[in-house]
Amino acid sequence: MKAVMSIVKLADVKAARERISGIIKYTPVLQCSEADRLTGRQVYFKAEHLQSTGAFKIRGALNAVLKIKEQSHVQDIHPGVVTHSSGNHGQALARAAQVVGLPCTIIVPKGSPVCKTDAIKGYGAKLVECYPSPTSRVEAMEKVRAETGAVFISPYDHLDVIAGQGTIGLELLEQVPDVDAVLIAMSGGGLASGIAVAIKSLRPSCRIYLVAPPGKMMEQCLRSGEREWPNPPQFLDTIAESIRMQQAGFNTFNILKDLAEKEVFEMSNEEMIEGMKFTFHRMKQVIEAAAGAAVAALFTDKMASLPADIKKVGVIVCGGNVDITNLPWYDSFSKGY
Amino acid sequence: MKAVMSIVKLADVKAARERISGIIKYTPVLQCSEADRLTGRQVYFKAEHLQSTGAFKIRGALNAVLKIKEQSHVQDIHPGVVTHSSGNHGQALARAAQVVGLPCTIIVPKGSPVCKTDAIKGYGAKLVECYPSPTSRVEAMEKVRAETGAVFISPYDHLDVIAGQGTIGLELLEQVPDVDAVLIAMSGGGLASGIAVAIKSLRPSCRIYLVAPPGKMMEQCLRSGEREWPNPPQFLDTIAESIRMQQAGFNTFNILKDLAEKEVFEMSNEEMIEGMKFTFHRMKQVIEAAAGAAVAALFTDKMASLPADIKKVGVIVCGGNVDITNLPWYDSFSKGY
Repeated sequence: MKAVMSIVKLADVKAARERISGIIKYTPVLQCSEADRLTGRQVYFKAEHLQSTGAFKIRGALNAVLKIKEQSHVQDIHPGVVTHSSGNHGQALARAAQVVGLPCTIIVPKGSPVCKTDAIKGYGAKLVECYPSPTSRVEAMEKVRAETGAVFISPYDHLDVIAGQGTIGLELLEQVPDVDAVLIAMSGGGLASGIAVAIKSLRPSCRIYLVAPPGKMMEQCLRSGEREWPNPPQFLDTIAESIRMQQAGFNTFNILKDLAEKEVFEMSNEEMIEGMKFTFHRMKQVIEAAAGAAVAALFTDKMASLPADIKKVGVIVCGGNVDITNLPWYDSFSKGY
Repeated sequence: MKAVMSIVKLADVKAARERISGIIKYTPVLQCSEADRLTGRQVYFKAEHLQSTGAFKIRGALNAVLKIKEQSHVQDIHPGVVTHSSGNHGQALARAAQVVGLPCTIIVPKGSPVCKTDAIKGYGAKLVECYPSPTSRVEAMEKVRAETGAVFISPYDHLDVIAGQGTIGLELLEQVPDVDAVLIAMSGGGLASGIAVAIKSLRPSCRIYLVAPPGKMMEQCLRSGEREWPNPPQFLDTIAESIRMQQAGFNTFNILKDLAEKEVFEMSNEEMIEGMKFTFHRMKQVIEAAAGAAVAALFTDKMASLPADIKKVGVIVCGGNVDITNLPWYDSFSKGY
C-alpha cells in the first residue's frame, strides 16, 4: 500500500492517538438532510469546530509536546517549544504546552487581534511580536530558538503534528467505515496529509480531495509532482486566514503528492461565505471560513461531476474560530455584494 | 405526586413519545467547560436547536396531528388542521401535517418574512394572511375553522402539544438522570408545562425555572395563583419574537402554577444577546434569542444566589431559527451599544 511508504506512517498516527486520546475530544460526525439532497450523496461533517480550542490544531500540537515530554530525561529544565502563529496553531500549542507543563513561546505578527493574543497569554505562553510576513515570522522564531534552545513545532510540517492531525482520519473511519471521499481544506497541509495517511492506509479506495483559496497552485504542483510555487513563500488573498499559506510544507507535499487526488477545489471568498452561511443556517453550527470552503466545495459543479460511486462524502469542518462580531457576510453586505 | 394531578399526565407524555419517536430527533445534550466554570455548577444544554425544523415545536405539532390521524375513521376526508403562527409553530405544524398527510392552513400576520412564509409553503400548507395582532390572528383562525371544519392546534395550549413538548423532559432525564434544576424560556408555556409534567413526575426534587422577557408578570401570577395579565392579550417588546406572548395559556398556567418555581428570570434584550454570543462563541452553536435568554439566565445574580445543592442545571436550548444575516448584535452595534 502506498501509505506505508510515506514519511509519516499509520503506526505513527495510531501512536499519536494513544498519546492524545484522553485529552482531546472525540468529535461527532454531523449530518444534514439538505446537504444530502443538494449533493445527491450522503455527507458526513467531522465536527472539529467542536474540538478543544475550537479547531483540530490541538491534536497535532499535543502529540508533539507529549512526545517531547516522553523523551525528556530531565523534564524540569526542558527549554520548551516555540512556533509562529497568532491563529489556531499558536493557541493550540500554548494550550498543549500548558497541559503538559512545558515552557512555550509564540511568535505573533504585530497587529494581531487582542482576543487571539489574550487567549495565548491565557494559556501561559510567552508572546514575541514580529513583522507580519511569512519570512519575518521564521526569522523571529529562529532567534528564539537560538537563544533558548526551544524546539520549533511547525504549524504543519512537523512529523508529530502531521501524525496528530491524522487521528481525525482514524475517528472518521470508525464513524463512517465506508466513506468514499473526504474534502479537506489545506494551508501548509498538516491536516490533509495526516488524514490522508490514516485513511489511505486503512481504506485505499477512499479519495482525498484538497480544498484551498484561489491561487494555491496545488493542482499544478500535484500534477507535475514538483514544488512550482514562487519564493519566498506568499500569503494568498483570502478571507480564510487559517488557510492563507500558498506553499505546502515539504513533508506534507511529499505525502499529498502520493495520496491526494490531483483535482483541487479552489474556492472564492464568496463561495466560502456561502458555505459558512449554509452551515450556520441549516446546521446551526458556527464555523470559520476555511471550514466554509470545504462545505462549499460540496455544492460545486466539480463535485457534481465526480463519479456516482462516491456515495459517502466526509467533510472536515476544521474549525469554528470566527469573530462573531465581524462575520464576513456583514462586511460583504456593506461592500455591496 | 403533584404532577399526577395535572391536566396533562406523565402517561400522556409517554404516549406522545411512542407516537413521535421514530420521526423527531433525539437531540444531544451539550456541555461547555466555560459555562461550568462561570456558574460553579454543571450545565447541560438540551440542543433543541438541532431538532428538525430548527426548534422543539415539531414535537408537539407532530403529536397532535398523529393523534388526529389515529382517531380518524375516514382519514381521506379529514378537514385537517389550522393554527396562527408565522414562526416556529407554524412551520412545525405545516411539516407535521405534511409528514402525516393532513391538510393544513397557517394564519400568518401580513408582512411576515418571506423566508418564513416560503418555508411554510414548502411544507405544502395553505397560507392565510391576517392583521398582525393577537386578536386578529384568533379571528382569522376562527373563520377558517368555521368554514372548513379544520381542527385548531394551539401553539401552546393544546393538550397534545403540551404532551409532545414534554418528551424533551423524558429525554433529558435519561441523559442527565440527577438533574437538579431546568431553565426554560416561555411564551404561551407549552414547552415549560410539558417538560414540568415529565420531570416533576419522575424527579420531584428537580426545580423548574421559567425565563421570559421583561413585563411577563409571570412571577406575580405564580405567586398569587391568579391570571393577573391585562386583556386583550399583549405582545411584549422583545427581540425574542418566539417568546413575545405576555399571557400563558389556560392549561399551561394551571400546570405551571403547581409545578414551576415562583422565581422567574426576566431577561433584557442585552442579556439575551449576551447569551446568544456566548453560545455562538464558546459552543459554536447558532441559537435564537429565546434560547439566548435561557443561556443568559445561567449568568445572572439570581442564578448565583440559588442553593448550592443545585449542582446539575439543564438549559433548554429551544431553537436556532435566527436570521443569520440580521443578528441582533449587529443591529445593536449600529445603534451604539
